[in-house]
Amino acid sequence: MFKEKEGFKYAMPAHFGGGKFDPDAKIIQNAMGLSISYETDRDLLEKFIPEGFELLKPQVDVTFNKFTQINWMYGGQYNLINVSAPVRFHGNKDELDGDYTLVVWENRTAPILGGREETGIPKIFADIEDLHILKPHYATTVSYEGNTFLNMNFESTEKVEGEDLERLKSQFKTINTLGWRYIPKVGAPGADLNQFILYPQGLELEKAQLGKGDLKWTELTPMQNPAQYHIINSLASLPKKKITQTALIEGKAILRAMAARIIE
Amino acid sequence: MFKEKEGFKYAMPAHFGGGKFDPDAKIIQNAMGLSISYETDRDLLEKFIPEGFELLKPQVDVTFNKFTQINWMYGGQYNLINVSAPVRFHGNKDELDGDYTLVVWENRTAPILGGREETGIPKIFADIEDLHILKPHYATTVSYEGNTFLNMNFESTEKVEGEDLERLKSQFKTINTLGWRYIPKVGAPGADLNQFILYPQGLELEKAQLGKGDLKWTELTPMQNPAQYHIINSLASLPKKKITQTALIEGKAILRAMAARIIE
Amino acid sequence: MFKEKEGFKYAMPAHFGGGKFDPDAKIIQNAMGLSISYETDRDLLEKFIPEGFELLKPQVDVTFNKFTQINWMYGGQYNLINVSAPVRFHGNKDELDGDYTLVVWENRTAPILGGREETGIPKIFADIEDLHILKPHYATTVSYEGNTFLNMNFESTEKVEGEDLERLKSQFKTINTLGWRYIPKVGAPGADLNQFILYPQGLELEKAQLGKGDLKWTELTPMQNPAQYHIINSLASLPKKKITQTALIEGKAILRAMAARIIE
Amino acid sequence: MFKEKEGFKYAMPAHFGGGKFDPDAKIIQNAMGLSISYETDRDLLEKFIPEGFELLKPQVDVTFNKFTQINWMYGGQYNLINVSAPVRFHGNKDELDGDYTLVVWENRTAPILGGREETGIPKIFADIEDLHILKPHYATTVSYEGNTFLNMNFESTEKVEGEDLERLKSQFKTINTLGWRYIPKVGAPGADLNQFILYPQGLELEKAQLGKGDLKWTELTPMQNPAQYHIINSLASLPKKKITQTALIEGKAILRAMAARIIE
Repeated sequence: MFKEKEGFKYAMPAHFGGGKFDPDAKIIQNAMGLSISYETDRDLLEKFIPEGFELLKPQVDVTFNKFTQINWMYGGQYNLINVSAPVRFHGNKDELDGDYTLVVWENRTAPILGGREETGIPKIFADIEDLHILKPHYATTVSYEGNTFLNMNFESTEKVEGEDLERLKSQFKTINTLGWRYIPKVGAPGADLNQFILYPQGLELEKAQLGKGDLKWTELTPMQNPAQYHIINSLASLPKKKITQTALIEGKAILRAMAARIIE
Repeated sequence: MFKEKEGFKYAMPAHFGGGKFDPDAKIIQNAMGLSISYETDRDLLEKFIPEGFELLKPQVDVTFNKFTQINWMYGGQYNLINVSAPVRFHGNKDELDGDYTLVVWENRTAPILGGREETGIPKIFADIEDLHILKPHYATTVSYEGNTFLNMNFESTEKVEGEDLERLKSQFKTINTLGWRYIPKVGAPGADLNQFILYPQGLELEKAQLGKGDLKWTELTPMQNPAQYHIINSLASLPKKKITQTALIEGKAILRAMAARIIE
Repeated sequence: MFKEKEGFKYAMPAHFGGGKFDPDAKIIQNAMGLSISYETDRDLLEKFIPEGFELLKPQVDVTFNKFTQINWMYGGQYNLINVSAPVRFHGNKDELDGDYTLVVWENRTAPILGGREETGIPKIFADIEDLHILKPHYATTVSYEGNTFLNMNFESTEKVEGEDLERLKSQFKTINTLGWRYIPKVGAPGADLNQFILYPQGLELEKAQLGKGDLKWTELTPMQNPAQYHIINSLASLPKKKITQTALIEGKAILRAMAARIIE
Repeated sequence: MFKEKEGFKYAMPAHFGGGKFDPDAKIIQNAMGLSISYETDRDLLEKFIPEGFELLKPQVDVTFNKFTQINWMYGGQYNLINVSAPVRFHGNKDELDGDYTLVVWENRTAPILGGREETGIPKIFADIEDLHILKPHYATTVSYEGNTFLNMNFESTEKVEGEDLERLKSQFKTINTLGWRYIPKVGAPGADLNQFILYPQGLELEKAQLGKGDLKWTELTPMQNPAQYHIINSLASLPKKKITQTALIEGKAILRAMAARIIE
């Protein structure tokens, strides 16, 4: 019969075996990303931030990333859309600033499962187009079963160099990604696991371009996207008062996969 | 700020809201399935059955299902491949027979997330072709990023009618699906949740055909399927001694979505 | 060396062999379709109808079909969106009424190639969702690389029966599909083949429902759909003055695959 | 009514308009490719080469390419698998060496249609994975509706530099791609267009690596791939006597889109 091994790490289905837990395991991957941040209404945004967090700025950060040459996927790749807001966590033990993850869409299921179950990042599925690149224009489209709900566009105007690049490099070096792991009870309301998690991430930025960017949320109906329409429509309801930053970046991510911890 | 509501049911991301917990919530969907069971080697199969379960027969049950008109997906659909073995659970409190779920592949992520997090069904992603139907021949193919790992074929020879149909109907009426919910610790080996779960399912069978069926597992390399190759190759390593049953079935599933419970 | 055989039918690549031409070859497939017709502006629609045809009514017919159990695809399936207008052809030899095919989107390439090269049906690719069915609601979405350009919705209100069904059956029995085969010159403007083609089709209607239907065209940019945006935007520019008919139909298509002929 | 314009270039559906024919129109795209050539049996390969061509070497050239930043697709991208053999064309007017295109698989329909109708390149559809890259390992998989039929693997051992790179650059500068445009008669055996076409292509090679490569063809049944199984099985029947060259290349393609011509 199958027996769990001491000091091993498993994911469902566990009975086909896991791997020895390695505290220094590294995720290595190339990244090409497009970030667009905008100012929104504080009250409306706060409705989606749990108690215990303080919203530092009424700002939504939307980032497309294409990850390639991913070591733990044996050279595979996937795209994501990360939506977050800048917060401060006021816990009993922990006090720290980071990016509270509102939602992440990814176009592969494997990283979705790991992200949710191991680090509480609320990842869900969408089709995410690779960047269409007709220099200086860049565009991507995010959709669910054929229904577009996010378009991102960018026109590069300026290569970042010298000190500006160094400043950006240090900005990307460490990002405090914050998630909320919520695993429901079986056959009952409420949660069996209900924890905030800090997952320090980071990127060795190599190249960056600034420019004019914009994005557009499109509301969907339940028939168009049964499990996500309320998320999309919530985000679409946040006014886009002002685009505050847009950047196209390239670099290499080297993460300590096991560096996440519960914050309290 | 977002506050969890008493008596509500949530899934990640929880902060966009959940729904009132309804103990009588029903999953309603049409099903068209193809089941192929085969005898295998007891010792090899037992390696994948956790302690606490007794293998009733050295048998692997592989079932393709296409679910359509799914109520909780607002009319959407998906395909799955369920792989299980007949077991008896010997717990401290519970003693029952059921199908231990070795793995389930599905071609939509939403039911994968719910199945894993709410009921411990070890669902993972694959591309699963709709049945190709050139009567009396039926075939489907299961693949990951273009790499075929399972082919199922069926040739219908006989429509099930009369008493035989009634017997089959009662066989499908209640199925004790057994899962193992395993949610890992954050940044450490071992589990935060480690529970066996009973999820009673069932099908109102309407039509059935018997015939000659066969299936073929194809081993994959880590570069072809990084997160699943060990699962596929484990299943491929089980000898297919004898096909013991094949059936093509149609019916309607009406499940109590909240009927799952932890068994001990 | 490869030699073409007398009396054979080939498609590119021809050198791997063709099949004996069979004038009685039949296409057999199941069909489930949703048709929505609407009145539009005559002058605007006539811009897309070539000289030689007379527009009988300022009407656009948009039909979704899911074909399954297709014999020539060995049991495979595909979805299509057919857009046509009712016309009369005034040729030197031929005078006939039919449906002039403005464009057909299909979600498989094989029938696109045959349709274009053999019968001049202007087929192009799109992702076309299977019908989402939450009775009495039916919906589909048509998109290109994640960009939605057509939504169709239907609410069934009435099953067609008796004489009404018979009338509908005879209406679907023969449809004069009209295409324009246009194969360009190599390295020069203009055409090497420039022919109007009649392809008589038909459906053995089995069931039909009437109801309330609607559709919505969404304009796309060249970056969203480089080869088709002008087609989509042309169709989107036609005012939808009044929905004139909507129907959900099921039946079986039995076509003489070789019955197409050039009309002059 | 729609009227064709003098000096314009059209594709089906023509009635939504074409573009002014531009003899100097350029296709510009980035390319990353993996080429594997192998020696095979002369007699068996010659069965697939039409009369009029002389097989220069019993060699099959299989090339994966990922094209990105494609100007005519407004920044879109696609993957292809090109299969060809080195030949000499002995015509009445033309005498030239080139690569006879046995078949091309592409994962987008738009370039398939143009390639077939405008230049006689026998393009058909398949799912073609982006390269999975776990340096120094590279792999891709080609499949149809989930059925794998080609795997390509490469292990880079050596960067090409200096004179070797220059030699390779000039080898890629001009490639005489040869196609056979075959458009069938309507409702009759034989062809309405039956022409050999020369389409000079080329690549500005920038980087190259040599290494150990291999590929594997997997036979398919008609139910797995109804329109292509005879092509795949024909290629699979050619013995792979010896891998003669493998290379991983990166560069930029700048083609004169209208430079193709009929050869006689």
